[in-house]
Amino acid sequence: MNNKTLMNNLRCIKDFPKKGINFRDVTTLFKDPECLRIMVDELYEIYKDKGITKIVGIESRGFVLASALAIKLGAGVVLCRKPGKLPAETVQESFTKEYGEDTIEIHKDAITSDDVILLHDDLLATGGTMLAAFHLVEKFCPKNIFVNFIIEIKDEGLDGRSIFKKETEITTLITV
Amino acid sequence: MNNKTLMNNLRCIKDFPKKGINFRDVTTLFKDPECLRIMVDELYEIYKDKGITKIVGIESRGFVLASALAIKLGAGVVLCRKPGKLPAETVQESFTKEYGEDTIEIHKDAITSDDVILLHDDLLATGGTMLAAFHLVEKFCPKNIFVNFIIEIKDEGLDGRSIFKKETEITTLITV
Repeated sequence: MNNKTLMNNLRCIKDFPKKGINFRDVTTLFKDPECLRIMVDELYEIYKDKGITKIVGIESRGFVLASALAIKLGAGVVLCRKPGKLPAETVQESFTKEYGEDTIEIHKDAITSDDVILLHDDLLATGGTMLAAFHLVEKFCPKNIFVNFIIEIKDEGLDGRSIFKKETEITTLITV
Repeated sequence: MNNKTLMNNLRCIKDFPKKGINFRDVTTLFKDPECLRIMVDELYEIYKDKGITKIVGIESRGFVLASALAIKLGAGVVLCRKPGKLPAETVQESFTKEYGEDTIEIHKDAITSDDVILLHDDLLATGGTMLAAFHLVEKFCPKNIFVNFIIEIKDEGLDGRSIFKKETEITTLITV
């Protein structure tokens, strides 16, 4: 169920980043201490008993709640970034986007097979980037991989969940 | 005083992003739950009585501790980003870097004159980006502005602190 305070504070910006897209802007949730607390508390309730050892934040709005939740869960934070940003050796995953190819990467020593991973990003729209992140994390053979977004976008016929395997455990805090 | 656990876990990468630079890689501190906790606890001790209402994280490694500390302090998180990333109306600041001009921005409604701001980034090297962020935040006329970095780099004659006004309250967790 959508939290009222979060819904009231979520900003929708028309035609960003391009015409026809109603962009859900989570920065208005980040800047508000109560919204930030609500989001982290809700995430904590969902994941407190899952044995999460590392939270992977997707560049770069995903870094925000990844870190706040990691502190509450006693987990570490791993950054999933675009190429050229991570200084040490990385593992990569390429994927097809609307206009061409994209690549994301994680430091090679950032995840081990002992880890239980929570992947986090702010928005679930088409789901393409998160699916690539999921495949990327699978290469590290962790014990389990959970997936979370702040917002699941269902307008304009979007159904980002449908591209994941059915057994993937995906949670979202808000559906619009 | 430099925390031993942090020092032991900090990674130094030679010649990144270009030849001659010893890049301090904080991702090894982020991924380790104990290091993450130590950093946030140290920051909490420094800032718990300062009345901080918003923490401004500098794109994008600065988002990580900005958020984790915000949850502990009961503050909000504000993102300071490169142009084109923030969807709503912004306030900008341009500054000169080694190779040309750069610009950073913050949402116009992200900070008010009632706020007490902590500016946070991972590395203090030349200090140029943070000084621009400081000037940018000054435009919002907050009650006070504090500045923090995880790491202050003093090798190769760097002295990033020297470009700030003397009365600026700058803290760092590690000096190398």
